[in-house]
Amino acid sequence: MSDERRKIMRVLSGETLTPPPVWLMRQAGRYLPEYRETRAKAGSFLDLCYSPEHAVEVTLQPIRRYGFDAAILFSDILVVPDALKRNVRFTEGHGPEMDPIDEAGILALKLDGVIAHLAPVMETVRRLRAELPAETTLLGFCGAPWTVATYMIAGHGTPDQAPARLFAYRYPEAFEHLLMLLADISAEYLVAQIDAGADAVQIFDSWAGVLGEREFEAFAAKPVARIIASVKAQRPNARIIAFAKGAGYQLKTYRQKTGADAIGLDWSVPLAFAQELQKEGPVQGNLDPMRVVAGGNALQSGIDDILGHLGDGPLIFNLGHGITPQADPANVAALVERVRGWRR
Amino acid sequence: MSDERRKIMRVLSGETLTPPPVWLMRQAGRYLPEYRETRAKAGSFLDLCYSPEHAVEVTLQPIRRYGFDAAILFSDILVVPDALKRNVRFTEGHGPEMDPIDEAGILALKLDGVIAHLAPVMETVRRLRAELPAETTLLGFCGAPWTVATYMIAGHGTPDQAPARLFAYRYPEAFEHLLMLLADISAEYLVAQIDAGADAVQIFDSWAGVLGEREFEAFAAKPVARIIASVKAQRPNARIIAFAKGAGYQLKTYRQKTGADAIGLDWSVPLAFAQELQKEGPVQGNLDPMRVVAGGNALQSGIDDILGHLGDGPLIFNLGHGITPQADPANVAALVERVRGWRR
Repeated sequence: MSDERRKIMRVLSGETLTPPPVWLMRQAGRYLPEYRETRAKAGSFLDLCYSPEHAVEVTLQPIRRYGFDAAILFSDILVVPDALKRNVRFTEGHGPEMDPIDEAGILALKLDGVIAHLAPVMETVRRLRAELPAETTLLGFCGAPWTVATYMIAGHGTPDQAPARLFAYRYPEAFEHLLMLLADISAEYLVAQIDAGADAVQIFDSWAGVLGEREFEAFAAKPVARIIASVKAQRPNARIIAFAKGAGYQLKTYRQKTGADAIGLDWSVPLAFAQELQKEGPVQGNLDPMRVVAGGNALQSGIDDILGHLGDGPLIFNLGHGITPQADPANVAALVERVRGWRR
Repeated sequence: MSDERRKIMRVLSGETLTPPPVWLMRQAGRYLPEYRETRAKAGSFLDLCYSPEHAVEVTLQPIRRYGFDAAILFSDILVVPDALKRNVRFTEGHGPEMDPIDEAGILALKLDGVIAHLAPVMETVRRLRAELPAETTLLGFCGAPWTVATYMIAGHGTPDQAPARLFAYRYPEAFEHLLMLLADISAEYLVAQIDAGADAVQIFDSWAGVLGEREFEAFAAKPVARIIASVKAQRPNARIIAFAKGAGYQLKTYRQKTGADAIGLDWSVPLAFAQELQKEGPVQGNLDPMRVVAGGNALQSGIDDILGHLGDGPLIFNLGHGITPQADPANVAALVERVRGWRR
């Protein structure tokens, strides 16, 4: 299904491209006036995620503006707990909320109907693949089980996921059950996205950084490995990027432990360490999103530093975390221009 | 000034003690009913910090209960911006707040009178040294310039210190000036604590984990190195623990870059990596505070893991972050008993 012209697919297969392909996490977002306009028409945030018409539109907006090498499906990692009937709400200025789950709730979770609930997402993927330029990689995604579980247990975001860490210590069996169940439904969800037309998928473990060593192994690496093994068993050509934000030193063995094709790097990952990780395969990252807000020399020197350290190996240029609402769209244009102009 | 019986001072000089000495970050805190009682009598949180009578009392409470090997001065890292006239407030349920500072405000900062403003803290230290058992190490502390600066710039806590990161990119000279000024006043403050009777001091860089590589070097390591060099030039026998929470892979060179005698480890630091760090000198840490809340096997296995990996080298047993209000005091007793019973 993939196209030789899709640069990100070539990097995901281990090729080094000069200049590297580029996309930005949360590139369809509030920093774009056209996004804010569509968002205002769409109803709730979840309505936007479940509306193929609007979700396609906001996914395409940054492609039209900047010609990024990848479009990433517009959706949210919390559509999975929503499909699991956890009553997910996005209230303006509050962050996501849902009904917190307990041991009994975990044992009562049912996977029936989850993928059917997510059918509009797959419809979005289908329409996107039809509308995107042939050279643009289409990325699907899901949240990693640990990160999704932190929200399900606390019922909302927290600074260090203390509720989920505590729950895992107190109820290790129920917690393991939750992670494995999320891994299985996530694998099914990613396969459905691939079948609908996603070229590759990314697994976001945004809260991997708050875990101790054994917990990182058991709660972050192991469930992600389970997803990847399952997806690859079903779709052997699938390409998967795993992004464990804040994992620091643990990234050393993350690729080998999970089987991911590429490793996402947050902006705190030192570039000498990133070079070590790149010796074993493609990496993606890792500009501080605040450099895009600052612009000017902070933006240029940050880009040059990454290209200088990682440009001679398989690299997908990206931010180290999602772009923020206060980023100036002109700075994003400058970013793309500078990456594309490298060694040209 | 130090006493041969003070075990933590011996470990800070490189000795391995079996079992290792133990204290807990935030050991004088809301999990203790006697703390809550004193806290209720003291007025505002800052009043408590500036009242030698009440600050001595809460510092001693966990020593009486558990006989920890160190008492840590009860105070807060934000007394320094308070002394810099930034109008620091602690409002119940809000976290700390202060007037956000801008470029002009930074250039207008005056160091005169800062140490005089902090005189009650030094009085607390003096009284503590007089009242503590001879074998108990008395620790002073301050916040690292980066961490203190994040609050000064945002005016409050934020999840990833985006305001300070952005400010540093936009106004690099003013930001450097702020960090160096904070380093100089912090060094003076630590020397005053040492002169008042603190045996050793800890520098808390609670937000070191949100920095990119070059920023970690420039904003975290360099100002802490400046503090340590200054303190050691003035008081050559001073012993200093540096705790850069979330620094991950950057810890590899942190001791060498800063000149700290001991390195604090948060609970995400893998124990094999901690062993590497311990080859170069004493380490302190790193139990997940949630294990103290959970108790039972989660607590015991976490303690045993740390002792098994780090007990054969210079170790100060501690948590990987402050103890939380919901910890059961009985679990703290169990922790101390288990550490003290190791190999006995």
